[in-house]
Amino acid sequence: MTEAIEIEEQFNALRSLIHQGDISQFRDIFLDWHVYEQGQFYLSLSDEERQTVYSFLSPTELADMFDMIEEEEEDVQEYLAEMRPSYAAAMLASMYPDNAADILKQLDKPTLAQYLSIMASEKALDLKELLHYEDETAGSIMTTEYVAIVANQTIKSALNLLKKKAKNAEIIYYIYVVDELERLVGVISLRDLLVGEDDEMIETLMNERVISVKVADDQEDVAQVIRDYDLLAVPVIDYEDNLLGIITVDDIIDVIDDEATSDYSGLAGVNVDETTENPLKASSKRLPWLITLLFLGMSTATLINHYEVLISEASILAVFISLITGTAGNAGTQSLAVAVRRLAVSDDKDESFFKLVISELLTGLLTGLITGLVIFIVVGFWKHNFILGFVIGIAMLCAIIVANLAGSLIPMLMERLGFDPAVASGPFITTLSDLTSVLIYFNIAGLFMNFFVG
Amino acid sequence: MTEAIEIEEQFNALRSLIHQGDISQFRDIFLDWHVYEQGQFYLSLSDEERQTVYSFLSPTELADMFDMIEEEEEDVQEYLAEMRPSYAAAMLASMYPDNAADILKQLDKPTLAQYLSIMASEKALDLKELLHYEDETAGSIMTTEYVAIVANQTIKSALNLLKKKAKNAEIIYYIYVVDELERLVGVISLRDLLVGEDDEMIETLMNERVISVKVADDQEDVAQVIRDYDLLAVPVIDYEDNLLGIITVDDIIDVIDDEATSDYSGLAGVNVDETTENPLKASSKRLPWLITLLFLGMSTATLINHYEVLISEASILAVFISLITGTAGNAGTQSLAVAVRRLAVSDDKDESFFKLVISELLTGLLTGLITGLVIFIVVGFWKHNFILGFVIGIAMLCAIIVANLAGSLIPMLMERLGFDPAVASGPFITTLSDLTSVLIYFNIAGLFMNFFVG
Repeated sequence: MTEAIEIEEQFNALRSLIHQGDISQFRDIFLDWHVYEQGQFYLSLSDEERQTVYSFLSPTELADMFDMIEEEEEDVQEYLAEMRPSYAAAMLASMYPDNAADILKQLDKPTLAQYLSIMASEKALDLKELLHYEDETAGSIMTTEYVAIVANQTIKSALNLLKKKAKNAEIIYYIYVVDELERLVGVISLRDLLVGEDDEMIETLMNERVISVKVADDQEDVAQVIRDYDLLAVPVIDYEDNLLGIITVDDIIDVIDDEATSDYSGLAGVNVDETTENPLKASSKRLPWLITLLFLGMSTATLINHYEVLISEASILAVFISLITGTAGNAGTQSLAVAVRRLAVSDDKDESFFKLVISELLTGLLTGLITGLVIFIVVGFWKHNFILGFVIGIAMLCAIIVANLAGSLIPMLMERLGFDPAVASGPFITTLSDLTSVLIYFNIAGLFMNFFVG
Repeated sequence: MTEAIEIEEQFNALRSLIHQGDISQFRDIFLDWHVYEQGQFYLSLSDEERQTVYSFLSPTELADMFDMIEEEEEDVQEYLAEMRPSYAAAMLASMYPDNAADILKQLDKPTLAQYLSIMASEKALDLKELLHYEDETAGSIMTTEYVAIVANQTIKSALNLLKKKAKNAEIIYYIYVVDELERLVGVISLRDLLVGEDDEMIETLMNERVISVKVADDQEDVAQVIRDYDLLAVPVIDYEDNLLGIITVDDIIDVIDDEATSDYSGLAGVNVDETTENPLKASSKRLPWLITLLFLGMSTATLINHYEVLISEASILAVFISLITGTAGNAGTQSLAVAVRRLAVSDDKDESFFKLVISELLTGLLTGLITGLVIFIVVGFWKHNFILGFVIGIAMLCAIIVANLAGSLIPMLMERLGFDPAVASGPFITTLSDLTSVLIYFNIAGLFMNFFVG
């Protein structure tokens, strides 16, 4: 709390320097801050205040801060639009290429072309290449600013080279070793360079078993590699082992975050990163799902309607509809969540497919048996009618088994068809299981009608 | 696929060296592997094969691998139990202290005391201190192996010092600067050390605005800091600014992962990290939730039972019970997920409390109005009964508003009461909203009974 107030005061002090036009004191304070705080300050400014900031700071100075804010902010294009094009292009050229490419991807074609034409041609070529890679692949999140050296040199010469390159590289703690054809042949950590003797050769020290990813690999697989091997960065190669770039751990944290958010959103049937608190916008995003599910639910209603005669003869049946659909829905959601997670971490999808279905089938049988038994006893005593209890119990058992099967099969089918299994959302499974549960329930009840009527 | 086969073959080759007792070739190959692969290999071995491994490798050599596997494996205690105590203690002493402490925490008291008594007393003291910190705080995940230097020296002397300390430190890419009382006063990156001139002084180069966390901070807040500032490690201090340890980014990835998993599990009402495929174990974990929800659902059934007369007079009412409860449940789940996520990222909980409730109320009103209107038209035309359509539509509207309010209020109340809002699970909200939806539905229907009967 006190820290938040302190920061607020510092922001206000700096803002008044903008209003006074005190460029030198502004620069003293602002440039001393961490880029994250610089970003938070920048985001708090008004249009006019930002214009003054552009006159106070060089494009390069602004670039460091933009490296921090680009991944969170949706308004980055608008910020660029309010800068002079030459200023914006210079800033983009000074950013880390992966971040600059992320921003450029969001621009319309003419603006993109304009910025690229202003930049130095080498830089523009670099960025154009990054723009080619498909979304969510290793290529699309890698940066081209890494340190690569050849094997045939001493530690001392490597360290000297590193000193020169250190300023521009995104990470200098792994140094990649390439051959004359730019093929990745080894890696050496800065720690090893420091600990080693000056005249040791890189080729004897380097580790030839380099962990690397392919440029077309899915970003989630890259995240798995970085997590498994506890890496700070991983090199990206093409299919001829040429080193193309590196992916750093901070970008992977964002991937892991996004992945978790999309799984969570899928289960809830809503985009939980809904940043808006505007109820109109929020509603417009949630309604498509709600209405779709409403129509799916209508088929359940139609089905119940089909059994209306049964209900009018034994209205007690209506009492247990929502209990059975609800419980089966809960079981199905559990099964779905386990299946989605299991698929995400499994290496051999085929093997896990059968294992998981069998396991869920048996789990459904067991949980169904016990839940069915409990409800049989409860309803039997409550209604003094053990036949009714039996019907409810058996219906519960069958409905839970079917829900468990659906909960595990649907995400796996989606995976096989090439969709993200996480979008087989919770509400979808529950609504679907409502339908099957009602069907099961009334068919079983129909067999025992003689015992309820009258 | 080919890679998986390749690894399988390498594993088999190495396994046969164990059987042949070929210690030197085993060591040549095994020690050349990445510790992650070493871990995967170790985990694939039988009891007897592991015994041979313990005779082939020193405790220190095994320690590196244990640093990798400890966080995932539940069986670590069993592995320790099969080693000689002196071997196990030596291995624990060679691990990074934070990982060793994680393992020690899971042991029973006598075994823990035994291991600590075998270790060198300095090491044992270090570990004992780490064992004191509360779970899920910065203290419980920090490591004590960092590099700290004093400000009053040149880059050259700092680099020399670093060379000596580099082997043992968990991360050497940030060097922390402390005063004579061990208080944290600055930080300098290895990159700055490399780029600087030999005779520059640390005190002029270092950054005095160190981003740090307090030892009692929640691990999720630490994760937020590392994410926001794109750090590889963050120093941990006590309330007098004394440097106690550091937390590295690889541990934070695990925290982010765990956090996401527990949110996801909460929404599904099941622990999705259920590693077992044993249906008996899986059932025993899922049943408590299912049965609890079953009894909650029983109250809904009791409520419907209360309206049985109404249903027997107008059985058409039963047709729409599950449609209304289902749709309200879906809306409540959306609202819940958004609230849980919003609470996780919000700094000012009080402000967001009111904002969120108002926002969800209005969102509920809007989505309820539109969903209600749709169902009014659909039912009106389907049943040629616009009064019925009106009843269903109004009930839908009210049920959705209540569900949205419950979905946002319940996690916020839990947060206020000091619980993790994520455990306010999806199934709980849907089952609760069943109850309120039924109440709303039959009360509204009761007012219009004259129009249905006959």
